[in-house]
Amino acid sequence: GSVNTMKTNDNLMSAFAGESQANRKYLAFANKAEKEGYANVAKLFRAIAEAETIHALKHLEVAGKIGGTAENLTSAVEGEHYEFEKMYPEFLNAAEEEGNSNAVRTFKYAMEAEKVHGGLYNKAKLLVEGGKDFDMADMYLCPVCGWIGGDPLPDHCPICNALAKNFKKF
Amino acid sequence: GSVNTMKTNDNLMSAFAGESQANRKYLAFANKAEKEGYANVAKLFRAIAEAETIHALKHLEVAGKIGGTAENLTSAVEGEHYEFEKMYPEFLNAAEEEGNSNAVRTFKYAMEAEKVHGGLYNKAKLLVEGGKDFDMADMYLCPVCGWIGGDPLPDHCPICNALAKNFKKF
Ligand SMILES: [Fe+2]
Ligand SMILES: [Fe+2]
Ligand SMILES: [Fe+2]
Ligand SMILES: [Fe+2]
Ligand SMILES: [Fe+2]
Ligand SMILES: [Fe+2]
Repeated sequence: GSVNTMKTNDNLMSAFAGESQANRKYLAFANKAEKEGYANVAKLFRAIAEAETIHALKHLEVAGKIGGTAENLTSAVEGEHYEFEKMYPEFLNAAEEEGNSNAVRTFKYAMEAEKVHGGLYNKAKLLVEGGKDFDMADMYLCPVCGWIGGDPLPDHCPICNALAKNFKKF
Repeated sequence: GSVNTMKTNDNLMSAFAGESQANRKYLAFANKAEKEGYANVAKLFRAIAEAETIHALKHLEVAGKIGGTAENLTSAVEGEHYEFEKMYPEFLNAAEEEGNSNAVRTFKYAMEAEKVHGGLYNKAKLLVEGGKDFDMADMYLCPVCGWIGGDPLPDHCPICNALAKNFKKF
């Protein structure tokens, strides 16, 4: 922001981190409550999850972290690169050393998906910097690993091998 | 989890934190792209945001942080209490000292909403511990501050004074 409030800027981002994680937890808890037959508890988790979305987005805005779209794409490219070049390789290495095969799988799927995300964001960034919209109108998400692609689709997910019929269209 | 992989358990929660924040950022960036007329970029941000949801939920599951509903409600009550008793009072105090009025408002709204969330979760927890579902079937969310309530509704939001006609029903 334009005001020199350094401590508060850090606090806004800490609160954003807390609200973001609370939202995702409540979503997981809502799915679990639904499976266990607690329909109203599931609804409560979903309603409160959306309240945390309101808090997270407002904190991010007040922190001045929402720029123009070209700037936002630059931030997105950097975030994806950090994840697939530094964070996930380290986490994957530790999970392999510790023999946690479920963690190895979830880190590997994420790492490979972030490479694809980074490439798509970079392509969109170049187009937006040239005054154009992204040139892909239909996008497909693999619900197992987070891979994203466009037409023509492969038969199977190139990361996790899931069948294309399971992809979600956007 | 049942495996003794302490470093990996920390890494799973770090990755969960990163994925959670990436998801919320991309959602904010999608809204901005839409406002700026980049329909396909908005769609790309939304599709990738959902990929990060898949990553976040899987990391949380592998970390063993999704319990039964009674346990999840206990975790939710604790999270809300931490936010309204410790985190937001400190952040609010610093924002007031630094004269950042936008931060004061967003912290205050969140702090007051968390008190309401904590009360609702606690009520649900007692019911679920007694083998019952939550006893509120219709819930309403104030889209300005995150307040949540049931019937009969007040005319205005008790936290931010928004009109009840703007509430979102769940
Ligand atoms: Fe919140
Ligand atoms: Fe990603
Ligand atoms: Fe996949
Ligand atoms: Fe991810
Ligand atoms: Fe809350
Ligand atoms: Fe409100």
